[in-house]
Amino acid sequence: MPAPYLQSYESRLANYNNPAARALLECIARKQSNLCVSVDVSTKAKVLEVVDAVGPSVCLIKTHIDIVEDFDADLLDQLEQLSKKHDFLIFEDRKFADIGNTVVLQYSKGVHQIASWSHFTNAHSVPGPGIIAGLASVGLPLGRGLLLLAEMSSEGTLAKGEYTEATVQMARESRGFVVGFIAQQRLGRADEDFLILTPGVQLGSAGDSLGQQYNTPAAVVGKGADVIIVGRGVYGKAGKEAVREEAERYKKEGWAAYEQRMKAAQA
Amino acid sequence: MPAPYLQSYESRLANYNNPAARALLECIARKQSNLCVSVDVSTKAKVLEVVDAVGPSVCLIKTHIDIVEDFDADLLDQLEQLSKKHDFLIFEDRKFADIGNTVVLQYSKGVHQIASWSHFTNAHSVPGPGIIAGLASVGLPLGRGLLLLAEMSSEGTLAKGEYTEATVQMARESRGFVVGFIAQQRLGRADEDFLILTPGVQLGSAGDSLGQQYNTPAAVVGKGADVIIVGRGVYGKAGKEAVREEAERYKKEGWAAYEQRMKAAQA
Repeated sequence: MPAPYLQSYESRLANYNNPAARALLECIARKQSNLCVSVDVSTKAKVLEVVDAVGPSVCLIKTHIDIVEDFDADLLDQLEQLSKKHDFLIFEDRKFADIGNTVVLQYSKGVHQIASWSHFTNAHSVPGPGIIAGLASVGLPLGRGLLLLAEMSSEGTLAKGEYTEATVQMARESRGFVVGFIAQQRLGRADEDFLILTPGVQLGSAGDSLGQQYNTPAAVVGKGADVIIVGRGVYGKAGKEAVREEAERYKKEGWAAYEQRMKAAQA
Repeated sequence: MPAPYLQSYESRLANYNNPAARALLECIARKQSNLCVSVDVSTKAKVLEVVDAVGPSVCLIKTHIDIVEDFDADLLDQLEQLSKKHDFLIFEDRKFADIGNTVVLQYSKGVHQIASWSHFTNAHSVPGPGIIAGLASVGLPLGRGLLLLAEMSSEGTLAKGEYTEATVQMARESRGFVVGFIAQQRLGRADEDFLILTPGVQLGSAGDSLGQQYNTPAAVVGKGADVIIVGRGVYGKAGKEAVREEAERYKKEGWAAYEQRMKAAQA
C-alpha cells in the first residue's frame, strides 16, 4: 500500500473528518484541479475580475482581504456567489501569529469577520499551541479548517529544521482542526495524511526583489504538494482572458504532475 | 560606563536616528512613564473610552485595529486627537508575518491603512529579511519604526534560542528601521541599544486558559524591558475611573522599576 499522499484525492477522503478538508478533496477530484490562485490585488473590482476569470480552473481561491482598499460586505457576498457559480473554496491567507486570546478576536471580529466566510485560514506556530486552541474555539463550530505554516518560500526563512518539526507535532495534537501545512515538501510520517499546500509556484521565473523564490508545478507536486498556489504568475497577466488562459495552463500542469506522481507510485 | 540600557531614557536618545524611536524616548522621559496599554477591545466606543482613560498615564497605546467591528476613518481621527491631547504614541500590534511583497500591501493598503497613522508596528522574523525590506519601503519614508518579535510570552512558543538569535541579527542589519524587539529580556550585545518592549505584564495573575503567562513590572524591567505592555490588567477593570486608576498604578510601578535599575547600575 503506497503512502496516503501517493493515493488518489478521492481515496484520501477517508483520512479526514474536517468538513473543509473533505469539501476541498471532493472539489479537487470533481474539477480535476489542484490549483489555488492567490488574488493579491487591492481593489474590489480587480479581486472580483480575477476570481471570475480563474474560478472555473481552481479548487481554491486564496485572499488577502486586508489589502482591499474598498472592502465592504458586498465583496464577501459576491465572493460567495462566485464560489458557488464556479465551485471553489476560499482560503484567507491571514497568517495569524498572536496569542490565543487575541486570535480569537481577530478571527471572529473586526470588519473582515474572517471566520464567517473563509473555509480555510492559516497560522504561524511561533506563539505555541495556544494559537491553535484559540482559532479552533471559533473555527471548529463553523466547520472551518486550519493550515499551519511549517515552511515558507522566502529567502532566509526561519521556518526550517526544529521549527518545522515542532510545527508538525502541534498539528498532530489538533488533527480535527489542523488539516495540513503551508510547506515546500511532504511533511509528517509516511503513514500520516496532511494536506500540503505549496506557494511560490511560477512557470519561468526565479524570484522577486523582496526574497520570494519560485518553483514549477511539477517540481512542487513531485516533492509532495497536494495543492499548488500560484499568485503573480496568473493574476499578473494583462486582461481577463489572458488571466483565464494562464489559470487553465497551471491547472493542467498541476493535474499532470499529480497523475505522474500516482503513476510513479504504482510502478 | 554602564551598558546603554542602564542609562537614562534621555541619554539613550543619542543612540537612535529613527524618528519614532526618538519621539518615544522623549515622551517616556517627559511623562515619566514607560507604560504601554494594550487596548484589545472590539468596539470603537470602548477603544476610545479606554484610550481617553489611560492616555495621561502612558507613553504608548497598543492597538489591534482589526478586531474593531465598527472601525471607520473617524476612529483614526479620534485616536490621533487623543494622542495629541494626552501626549502618547501609537503602536499597531499587527504582527506582520508574510513575504515582502505581501506586507508592503498589508502595511500601506486595505481599509486599515496602518502605515498612515501608527508610529510603530511589529513583525515576525520567520519569513526572513524580506519582510523587513518590504515594511521599510513603506514605513521609513513616513518616519515609522519597526519592532521584531524576538520572543513571546505564550506557553510553548518557538521564538527562542537560535530563532531569537537570528532575529537579533536581522535587526542589526536594518538598524535605521528596526528600533527594537518584543521580548521577555534584554537582547543584543552589551554595547548595543535596542528598545525592549515586554508584553504579558500583570500584577497578581499567573496566566489565562489559552497559554498566556504573566510577569510583574518589576520583574520585566529588571530583566531589561524599556517599555512594559499591560493589557487585560488595565482595560479589564469595570468603569472608566477604575481603568484610569489602574493605569496610573502600573505607570508608577514601571517607573519605580526603571529608577531601581538605574540605581543598581550606579552602585
